[in-house]
Amino acid sequence: MATTRPETDSLGTREVPAAPLWGIHTLRALENFPLTGRPIHPLLVRSLGLVKLAAAQTNHRLGAWSDDDDKASAILAACTEMAEGGLGSAIVVDALQGGAGTSANMNVNEVLANRALELLGCGRGEYTRVNPLDDLNLHQSTNDVFPTALKIAALLSLDRLEQRVVALQEALQEQEQRWAHVVKVGRTEMQDAVLITVGRGFGAYAEAINRDRWRISKCRERLRVVNLGGTAVGTGLAAPRRYIFEVTEALRQLTGLSLARAENLVEATQNVDVFVEVSGILKAHAASLLKICTDLRLLSSGPDAGLAEIRLPARQAGSSIMPGKVNPVIPEAVSQAAMLVIGNDTTLTLACASGSLELNPFLPLVALTLLDNLDLLAQADDILCRHCIVGIKVDEARCARQVENSTASATALLPAIGHERAAEIARKAAHTGTSVRELAREAGISDVQFDQLTSATAVCRLGFVPPSTEKR
Amino acid sequence: MATTRPETDSLGTREVPAAPLWGIHTLRALENFPLTGRPIHPLLVRSLGLVKLAAAQTNHRLGAWSDDDDKASAILAACTEMAEGGLGSAIVVDALQGGAGTSANMNVNEVLANRALELLGCGRGEYTRVNPLDDLNLHQSTNDVFPTALKIAALLSLDRLEQRVVALQEALQEQEQRWAHVVKVGRTEMQDAVLITVGRGFGAYAEAINRDRWRISKCRERLRVVNLGGTAVGTGLAAPRRYIFEVTEALRQLTGLSLARAENLVEATQNVDVFVEVSGILKAHAASLLKICTDLRLLSSGPDAGLAEIRLPARQAGSSIMPGKVNPVIPEAVSQAAMLVIGNDTTLTLACASGSLELNPFLPLVALTLLDNLDLLAQADDILCRHCIVGIKVDEARCARQVENSTASATALLPAIGHERAAEIARKAAHTGTSVRELAREAGISDVQFDQLTSATAVCRLGFVPPSTEKR
Amino acid sequence: MATTRPETDSLGTREVPAAPLWGIHTLRALENFPLTGRPIHPLLVRSLGLVKLAAAQTNHRLGAWSDDDDKASAILAACTEMAEGGLGSAIVVDALQGGAGTSANMNVNEVLANRALELLGCGRGEYTRVNPLDDLNLHQSTNDVFPTALKIAALLSLDRLEQRVVALQEALQEQEQRWAHVVKVGRTEMQDAVLITVGRGFGAYAEAINRDRWRISKCRERLRVVNLGGTAVGTGLAAPRRYIFEVTEALRQLTGLSLARAENLVEATQNVDVFVEVSGILKAHAASLLKICTDLRLLSSGPDAGLAEIRLPARQAGSSIMPGKVNPVIPEAVSQAAMLVIGNDTTLTLACASGSLELNPFLPLVALTLLDNLDLLAQADDILCRHCIVGIKVDEARCARQVENSTASATALLPAIGHERAAEIARKAAHTGTSVRELAREAGISDVQFDQLTSATAVCRLGFVPPSTEKR
Amino acid sequence: MATTRPETDSLGTREVPAAPLWGIHTLRALENFPLTGRPIHPLLVRSLGLVKLAAAQTNHRLGAWSDDDDKASAILAACTEMAEGGLGSAIVVDALQGGAGTSANMNVNEVLANRALELLGCGRGEYTRVNPLDDLNLHQSTNDVFPTALKIAALLSLDRLEQRVVALQEALQEQEQRWAHVVKVGRTEMQDAVLITVGRGFGAYAEAINRDRWRISKCRERLRVVNLGGTAVGTGLAAPRRYIFEVTEALRQLTGLSLARAENLVEATQNVDVFVEVSGILKAHAASLLKICTDLRLLSSGPDAGLAEIRLPARQAGSSIMPGKVNPVIPEAVSQAAMLVIGNDTTLTLACASGSLELNPFLPLVALTLLDNLDLLAQADDILCRHCIVGIKVDEARCARQVENSTASATALLPAIGHERAAEIARKAAHTGTSVRELAREAGISDVQFDQLTSATAVCRLGFVPPSTEKR
Repeated sequence: MATTRPETDSLGTREVPAAPLWGIHTLRALENFPLTGRPIHPLLVRSLGLVKLAAAQTNHRLGAWSDDDDKASAILAACTEMAEGGLGSAIVVDALQGGAGTSANMNVNEVLANRALELLGCGRGEYTRVNPLDDLNLHQSTNDVFPTALKIAALLSLDRLEQRVVALQEALQEQEQRWAHVVKVGRTEMQDAVLITVGRGFGAYAEAINRDRWRISKCRERLRVVNLGGTAVGTGLAAPRRYIFEVTEALRQLTGLSLARAENLVEATQNVDVFVEVSGILKAHAASLLKICTDLRLLSSGPDAGLAEIRLPARQAGSSIMPGKVNPVIPEAVSQAAMLVIGNDTTLTLACASGSLELNPFLPLVALTLLDNLDLLAQADDILCRHCIVGIKVDEARCARQVENSTASATALLPAIGHERAAEIARKAAHTGTSVRELAREAGISDVQFDQLTSATAVCRLGFVPPSTEKR
Repeated sequence: MATTRPETDSLGTREVPAAPLWGIHTLRALENFPLTGRPIHPLLVRSLGLVKLAAAQTNHRLGAWSDDDDKASAILAACTEMAEGGLGSAIVVDALQGGAGTSANMNVNEVLANRALELLGCGRGEYTRVNPLDDLNLHQSTNDVFPTALKIAALLSLDRLEQRVVALQEALQEQEQRWAHVVKVGRTEMQDAVLITVGRGFGAYAEAINRDRWRISKCRERLRVVNLGGTAVGTGLAAPRRYIFEVTEALRQLTGLSLARAENLVEATQNVDVFVEVSGILKAHAASLLKICTDLRLLSSGPDAGLAEIRLPARQAGSSIMPGKVNPVIPEAVSQAAMLVIGNDTTLTLACASGSLELNPFLPLVALTLLDNLDLLAQADDILCRHCIVGIKVDEARCARQVENSTASATALLPAIGHERAAEIARKAAHTGTSVRELAREAGISDVQFDQLTSATAVCRLGFVPPSTEKR
Repeated sequence: MATTRPETDSLGTREVPAAPLWGIHTLRALENFPLTGRPIHPLLVRSLGLVKLAAAQTNHRLGAWSDDDDKASAILAACTEMAEGGLGSAIVVDALQGGAGTSANMNVNEVLANRALELLGCGRGEYTRVNPLDDLNLHQSTNDVFPTALKIAALLSLDRLEQRVVALQEALQEQEQRWAHVVKVGRTEMQDAVLITVGRGFGAYAEAINRDRWRISKCRERLRVVNLGGTAVGTGLAAPRRYIFEVTEALRQLTGLSLARAENLVEATQNVDVFVEVSGILKAHAASLLKICTDLRLLSSGPDAGLAEIRLPARQAGSSIMPGKVNPVIPEAVSQAAMLVIGNDTTLTLACASGSLELNPFLPLVALTLLDNLDLLAQADDILCRHCIVGIKVDEARCARQVENSTASATALLPAIGHERAAEIARKAAHTGTSVRELAREAGISDVQFDQLTSATAVCRLGFVPPSTEKR
Repeated sequence: MATTRPETDSLGTREVPAAPLWGIHTLRALENFPLTGRPIHPLLVRSLGLVKLAAAQTNHRLGAWSDDDDKASAILAACTEMAEGGLGSAIVVDALQGGAGTSANMNVNEVLANRALELLGCGRGEYTRVNPLDDLNLHQSTNDVFPTALKIAALLSLDRLEQRVVALQEALQEQEQRWAHVVKVGRTEMQDAVLITVGRGFGAYAEAINRDRWRISKCRERLRVVNLGGTAVGTGLAAPRRYIFEVTEALRQLTGLSLARAENLVEATQNVDVFVEVSGILKAHAASLLKICTDLRLLSSGPDAGLAEIRLPARQAGSSIMPGKVNPVIPEAVSQAAMLVIGNDTTLTLACASGSLELNPFLPLVALTLLDNLDLLAQADDILCRHCIVGIKVDEARCARQVENSTASATALLPAIGHERAAEIARKAAHTGTSVRELAREAGISDVQFDQLTSATAVCRLGFVPPSTEKR
C-alpha cells in the first residue's frame, strides 16, 4: 500500500503522506512554520468547525450540492464532527504561522474534505468529488473565517473563565465570613497601621475578583461582532449576498452565542483593536491575582520569623534539607501565570498594532496569546480556589498577640481618648515595650473597654459618631 | 529679611526657604525624590484642590472652624484657588515619589495652609492659626485623598481626549465622503488583492476611532467610584460618619462628575485594578493610531518609487540634501506617542500589580503614566487630525493607473465571467504585461462594462446577486 | 496486576500509577499545576540529567554507595541515560510550577531512582534500595540544581542559535554579492531619498545579524557561572566541602562547557539578573529580525501596486479568490516569532525582578520564557534563511525604471552639477513628469555620464573627492 | 521694535518671534509636535553642540569659510558654547517629534547660526552671512548628526551612572562588613529556611550591583561606533571624503570618548539594534534594584507585626493618623523608577524594531526613553545609597530572638547530629513551642555548642567537613 499520494496546488505537485486526512497545503505549512511546536488551540479548531458548518448549511440551503445529496450530507457530517470537538488530531499546523491563518484554514478545509470523502467511501485526495477549496471554503476566505473562529473560541473560553472566577469569588467570600471575627494589624506600605479584621482582607480580594467577573462579561460584548461573509477584504467578493446575510444567523444558532454581523465588513476585516481591548481588560484580572498572591505569600510567611497570620494548605513537601517546610507553591504558580499573561498582552498589542492596509497578517499570534491567556487565567483561578483559598486557616492566637503588642492598636483608642493621647500611648509603647493594653489601662481604659475598642465590630465600623451627635 | 524660617515635623526641625508657600514636608520630599525632574500633573494638582475644597466644605458644614469664620473663609478660599487651577507653581515635589502620594498631599496641605495664612494677613508657617495637618488634612489621609484626586484628574483628562477623538473621527468621515469615488487596489499582507475605494479606507479608520470614542466613555464609568472618606485603610478611622457620607456628594457637586462613594472602602483603598483596566482600554486607541499611521506612511510613500496613492500635507522641509522631500512627520510623531503609551501601560500594570496588603504604595507612578498617556493620546489625536488628515489629497490618476495595470482588477470581473476565466486573465496579465482591460476586452467585456465592473459602486457592493435571483 | 502502588511523603500516603517511573511528588505536582499543559523543555530535562550525573559521580568518588557497587552503577547509568537525552517522556510535570522548580527536580529524582531500581531488577517504589531524595538528591537542593540546569540548557540552546545566525548571515552576504550591481532608490522615512544598491541593503541586514552573532557569544559568558553545591541558600548546608569544590568540575567535563562555580554562592542563589541581561540581549536579535522582515514585506509588495523591487520565493498558495497571489508568509511568521520574543522578555523581566530574600521562586517561568525565546529565534532564523533569503530574486528592470523615473536620481548628479542645479532638476521632474535623465541631458550631462553617475559604483562611493583635490 | 521677523523655507514664509535665537524650522516644529511638553535632554543638546563643533572644525580645516575668518570664528564660538552646555534654553522643540530628529537638528542649526550672527554683530535671520543649513549643517544630515549625538549623550550619562553604581556598591559592602556578625533566619519562598547572616544579605546585593557596574562598562563599548559622515543614508552623499575620514577623529578629541567611525555607514544609519541591547542590559540593573528594594521593604516591615530585622532611616513623617509610622519611602521611590525603566525599555524596543529601509524615523523616542532611563537609574542609585543604605540599622536583638525561636535553627544542628535528629527537633519545636535551643540541650548539645553551631562563622561556612576527614 502506498505511503504517499500526489497532490497538486498552484505551486506544483507534492507527495503527501497517505494516512492523515490533511493534504498539500498542510504539508507546505508544516515545512514552512516549524516555530513553536504547538498546535492550534482545540477551541479554535472546534470554532473553525462551527464556522465551516454554518457556511456549509447556508450554502446548502441556498442551493449548493443540490444535485448531490450524498455529498452534501458528507460535508455537513464532517463539519459537524469538527464542530463537536472531533478531528482535532488532524489539525497539525503550527499555531504560529505566516499568512494570517491561511494554513489553519486550509488544514481544516483539507481534513474536512478528506473526512467527507471517507464518509462517501472515496479515497483521500479525490478532490473532484469533494474539494477543499471549492466546497469547504465556498464563499469564504481565511480573512473572514479565521477572525470569526477566533472570536468564537475566545467567547467559549470566556464561559469557562467566568465559572472559575465565580467559584474563586465565592471561596473568598466564604473565608470573609469565616474570619470576620479575627482582628489583626492592618498594614500600609508594609508598616503596621491600624487594626482591621482578617475577614475584611478576604472581602477585599472577593470584591476585586467580583469586578473581574463583571469585566469578563464586558469582554463578551466586545467579541460578538464578526466579519463572516466579508471574504477577502470585507466586500464579500465572490459571495452571494443572501449567503452573507444568512451565514451569521446560522452561526448564531449553532453556537448559541449572540453573534452579530459587523455593519462595516471592510473595517471589521482590517481592524483588530478589539483584541487589544479584551486582552487589556483581562490583564486587570492578572494584576488582581498577582496582588492577592503576593499578599498570601506575605501573610503566610514564617512560620516563626514571618508574619504567619495565615497558613496555606500544604500541597507538597517543601524541602529535603529543611524538615516541615511548606512553601506557598500555589500562589507562586498563580503569580507566574499572571506574569505570563502580562507579557502575552504586550505581544498581542504588538501584533494587533502592526497590521497594515486591508488586513492584519499577525492574527495567528493574536490567537495564540489570547487563548493562552484565557487558559492561564482559568487554570490559575481554579487552582488558587481549590488548592489554596478554601483551605486557608488563620492563626488566631498569633493575630491576637500581634494586636496586643502592636502600637497600631493605639489607633483603635482614637474614638475614646482622642488623637493626642493615643499618639502618646503609641510612642510610649514603642519606647518602653509595654503593651498598649497596659498603657491604656493606665490612661483609664478598662480591659473590657479595650476589648470593645479593639473588637472586630469596632475596628470595622465606618468612621466614628461624635459623642454630641450620639445624644441626639 | 530672613531667607529661611524654621519648621518642625515629627522628625525634627529644619530651615525652610521663606518665600515659597510650601514647608518642611515638601522640603524633605525635594531632598528625597529628585527622580524625574517633572512636577505633578497640573490636572492632578487641580483635582487635589477640588478634594481639599470638598473636605473643607463638608468639615465646615459639620462644625469645623465654627469659632473662627475668618479662618474658615481663608481655608475655603485657598482651596477654591487651587481647585480653579491656581497655586500650581507652589506644588514642586517630584511626580515620582515614595510614600503613596504623601508628599504630594503634604505639599498641597502646606501650600493651602500658608495661602490661607496669607489671606488672613499672617506670616508663613504660623501653623497654630491654620495647620496643614489639623485643618487642611482634617478627616483625610493620603490614602483616600490621592487616589480620589487621581480619578478626578483622569476623568477631566478623558473629557478632552473624547473631544479630540470626536474631531479626528469627523475628519476621517469627511475624507471618507470626499474620496468615495476613487477606486484603488486593496492589499492584504502587502500584496495586491482586490479593488476597493479610497473612501472605504478612510471609513475603516473612522470606524476604529469611533470604537475608541465609545471605549473612552466606558473608561469614565470605571473611574467614578472613589474612596474619599476611607482615610488610612478604608475604615474611615478618625473621621466622623456624617463627614464620610457627605464628602463625596460635595465633591460631586464641585466637579460636576458623577462620582460615587465605594461601598467597600477598605477594598477600594487597597485595590487599583481599575487603572490597569482603563490603561488597557486606552491602549487599544494607541494600537488603532499606530495602524492608521503605518498605513498613511505606506500609502504616501514615494513620490515615485512608492505607493504614492495619497499625499500628506507638507508640514516641514524634509531634507537639505534631497530637494522637495516631504516626510510623513505627523504620522511618525503620532506613532511614537502611541508606542510610548504602550510602554507606559506596561509600567502602570507593573505598578498596580505590585501592591500589597492594605495599600498600593506605587500610585504616584500610576498617576504619572496614566495622565501622561491621556495627554499623549489627546495631543496625538489633535495633530493627526489638524495637521494631517484634513489636508490629505489623493492622487486619483495614480490610483486609476494602478487599477488599470494591476492583476487585482481581474477579481472585479468575477461576477461577470466567473472565477476560472478571471484567474486566466490575471495570469495572462502577469506574464505578458498586457493590461487587464485589454484582456477583458478579448474575453468579451466591453470598455463600458469594464468601467462598470471596476466602478466605485461595483467594487464596494456587498457580495453579488446571482443572475437567476436577479430575474425574480 | 495492580495499576497503582502506594507511596508516602511528608504529607501522607497516596496511590501512584504503577506503570510510570515517577512517584508521589510528581503526582502532587500534576494535581497542583495544570497550568500550561506544556512539559519541561527537553534541553532542560537533559541538563537536569547532566547535573544529576555530575553530582552522582562526585558523590561516588567521595565515597557514596561504596558498599553497594551495583547500586552506584545503576544510579550512574540512569543519570547517564537522561543526560544523553533519554527518559524525557517520564518528566511530566507542567513547565509552569510553583516551588522554584522543586517539582521538576523531584520528578527527575523519582524517575532516576525508579530507573535505577529497574536496572537493579527491583520494582517501582522500592526506595529503601534507591531513594529519590537520599540518593538522587544527595548534597543537592532544587535551589542549586534547577538554576544550574537552566544555565546549561540555555548554553546548549545558544549553540544551535549561533549556528542558525551564522547561516542566516552568510545567506545575506551571498545576496549582498549577488545584487551588488543593481542600483535602486533608497528611502528614508518611506520617501524616495538617494540612490543606493540592492546589495547594500542585504549588506546592512548581514551586518546587523553579524552583531547578533557576536551578542550571542557574549550571552555565553554571562551564563557560565553556576551555583551548584550551594544547596538551599548558597552556604552548601549539608554538603561536604570537597563535594562542593569538585562537582562543578565534574559538570564542566561532562558538558564540555566552560562552567565555573560562583565565588559567592549565596549571592548566586538569590540573584537572577543574569537572565534579564541575556534575554535583553537576545531581544536585540528579535528587533533586527522584525526590521528585516518589515523591509522584505515592503520591498516585495505589489506585484503591481507596490514597491515590487524584490520577489520572495513562493512558499504556499496565497489565496483562493485572488489567483496567483503570493504572500510574504515567511517574513510574517518570523515577525510573529520576534514579537513573541519581545513579550516573553517582559514576562521574564517581571519574574526575575520579583524575587525576594534568599531565593527567586519564579525560576520555572524564567526557564519557560528563556528557552522558548531561544527556540523561537533559532527556528525563525532557520526558516528566514532557508525558505526566504536564499530564494529572493530582484526585479532589476523595475529597479532601473524607478531609478530612471525618480527625482531621487537628481541627488546622484550632485557631484557633477552641484546642489542648486540638482535641486532645480528634481523640482522640474516632479512638476513636469519629464525623466531626470532627460532633464540632465538638457543640463549638459550626456547619457554616458548619467549612467556613470547613477552606476552602482558611483552611488556607493563614500563621499566625493572635490575636483581640485583630485588634481593634487 | 518689531516683535517678529519673516523667515522663509521651502514651504513658504512665516513670521518668527524676533527675540529667540531659533527660526522658521523651529517654529514649524513647535506647531507640529506639542506632544510631551518636554524639551530635548540637556545632554543631547550638549552632544549636538559637540557634533556641530567637530563638523565645523573639520570643515574649517578643509577650507570652509577661508575667505571670512570672522565668520569662521563666530561659528566655532557658537558651537563651542553649546558644546560646553550653553544655549540650551533656545532648544525648544518637543523631545517627541516626527522626522527622525530633523527638528532637533534644525533648532540647533538655527540657534547656532543666529548666535554666530550675534557674535558678528548682525541681526537675527541674516542668513546670507551665516546660514543654518549651508554653514551649520554643512556636510551633515540629521541622519548622521542625531544618532551620533544620541550615542555621545548616552556615553556621558553612563559616566555618571557608573559613579553612582560604584557608590551604591561600596555602601552595600560597608553594610556587609558592619553586620557580618549578626545571625538571622534566611528565607526561601518567604518561608524560614536556614540560618545566615545579615552581612551575607548585603553582600549579595553588593555583588549584584557589582555585576551591574560591569554591565554598564559593556554598554559603553556598544555605543562608541558612530555614523557621522554618512549624511543621508550612509554613503556620505554631498560630503567630501576627507571630511568623512576626519570628522570622527575631531569628535573623539573634543569628547575624550573612544569613538570610532562605523565601517559600514549605510548599515549604521539604518540599524539601531544597539540601543535595544544597551537598554536591555540596563534593564538588568533595574531588576536588581527592584529585588533589593522589595527585600528592604520586607525586612523593615513592622515594627511589631512584621519581620522588623532592619530599620531604614526615617526620611519623612509617615502618617498623621498613625503616630510614629515611618514608611520605606526611598525603596518605594526607587522601585517605581525601576518599573518605569522596564516600561520604557518596551517602548524603546518597539521604536527600534519599527524602522524600515534606509532609516529608523523613531529615534527621538529612542533618545527620550534611553536618556530618561539613564537618569532614572542614576538618581535612583543615588537616593538609595545616600538616603537609605548608609543609614540602615539592624535590630540585633530581634534577629537573635527569631533565631532562637525558629525551627530553621534546627538546620544548623545538621553537622552535629545529622539530618534525622535535626528534623525531629524541628518537628517537636513546631508542635510544642519549645525553643530549639531547649530541645537541642535535651539532645545533648550544650549551650556553648549551640552557640557555636549557630554562630556567624558556622552558618556561613561553605559546606561541612566530615568528621573522618577532619582527623586526617
